[in-house]
Amino acid sequence: MRIKIIFAYDGTNFYGLQKQPNLRSVESSFEEVLFGINNNSITKFVSSGRTDRGVHAKGQVAHFDISVEITMDKLKRALNSYLPEDIHVIFCEEVANDFHARFSVKEKTYTYLINCGELSVFDRSHVYQYGRGLDIEEMNKAIKSFLGTHNFVNFVSKQDKRDDYKRTITKANISKEGDHIKIIFSSNGFMKYQVRNMVGTLLRIGQGKLPAESIAQMLNGDDTIKAYTIKPEGLYLSEVKY
Amino acid sequence: MRIKIIFAYDGTNFYGLQKQPNLRSVESSFEEVLFGINNNSITKFVSSGRTDRGVHAKGQVAHFDISVEITMDKLKRALNSYLPEDIHVIFCEEVANDFHARFSVKEKTYTYLINCGELSVFDRSHVYQYGRGLDIEEMNKAIKSFLGTHNFVNFVSKQDKRDDYKRTITKANISKEGDHIKIIFSSNGFMKYQVRNMVGTLLRIGQGKLPAESIAQMLNGDDTIKAYTIKPEGLYLSEVKY
Repeated sequence: MRIKIIFAYDGTNFYGLQKQPNLRSVESSFEEVLFGINNNSITKFVSSGRTDRGVHAKGQVAHFDISVEITMDKLKRALNSYLPEDIHVIFCEEVANDFHARFSVKEKTYTYLINCGELSVFDRSHVYQYGRGLDIEEMNKAIKSFLGTHNFVNFVSKQDKRDDYKRTITKANISKEGDHIKIIFSSNGFMKYQVRNMVGTLLRIGQGKLPAESIAQMLNGDDTIKAYTIKPEGLYLSEVKY
Repeated sequence: MRIKIIFAYDGTNFYGLQKQPNLRSVESSFEEVLFGINNNSITKFVSSGRTDRGVHAKGQVAHFDISVEITMDKLKRALNSYLPEDIHVIFCEEVANDFHARFSVKEKTYTYLINCGELSVFDRSHVYQYGRGLDIEEMNKAIKSFLGTHNFVNFVSKQDKRDDYKRTITKANISKEGDHIKIIFSSNGFMKYQVRNMVGTLLRIGQGKLPAESIAQMLNGDDTIKAYTIKPEGLYLSEVKY
């Protein structure tokens, strides 16, 4: 049967989601555990998409096929007892065989957290620390330019060659909760480094180093403005919709 | 000049606050850094009191004497740049020479956090996980028995021999914020394991394993009821008053 799971991970000590030789990854952690649960047979783990080294997830989704008879409750408990403590399965569900964690994605949501207050030793790997004050009004003005369908070539790495850089942003929101600034983006898909470049460029605007209009100019093809890649520690894959 | 500092630490990777040979402690981390800041001279670091292995602090206080001329702003920055990332100095202030971080304490406040919701990978070392539901009304009834002056001999380790087990609890409060239960105690002083035994026994009451009256019975000298020592990971020294 095909299983869909929703899970969280603390990205701090993983070399990203994707399996890589001799490096600790979320994918290989799952496949090791699934091998045992699924009667010592190799079980392919398919996530909604990779996240980079250091990026966290609160609502990542994956699917896999198992041949053992097990209730969803027991499966969740088995996964959580064998998985390392920086991965936690929130929900398990049996789905139709044509469900595909990557190809069936309708929308992904990423959240980025910036702490503008006193550094917290408890959140030091889970939030970007910026204690010097940001112009949130300018950032709010700028972020709205992301909404809609645009060519994001200026928000990905120059090495990232592909045919289509068009993506549709359905949500672009910035809010302040206490000392935390929370930036949320939803889209039908994000390219590598895209969110970190979008947030990093917004940060430059909040610092007064770039005018709010820069975003619209970059989306319109102006490649004289350089995107700034913010660190991964404040970034969370928060939801995947199907 | 004598300096008072307020600081936070993530207790996860320390063998407690107090210096111990060959073990990582908060005190030795400070003394190493202060040696450099204070012109390579040994600088005694005096905290408000030790915290055990794994216990955190959001508002621990200490004093030390330095002979170099330095502004409080620069001192704070120097400390934070040389200290390990799981310690953070929040506030530095010059104080009178008769201020003593331990002997001048008027009141200490500890906070204990219990997560009754889904386990969070991000807080796994900073909250006690208990997903099975607690009877917070019974716990609330029980916690009020701690208020006032009592003999806490039944809430410390049997090995802890001293003349006086009397302490005065000035605040004993339990509240629910979302999935988190927050337990707060203030007192003129706490003994080793006392807070963890008070919270652990409350947990037993919340689980229905002990009646709410147990606390009052134990405070009245009934040593047939055993205190339960809860893990340190949810415990924070949150404030020290002078």
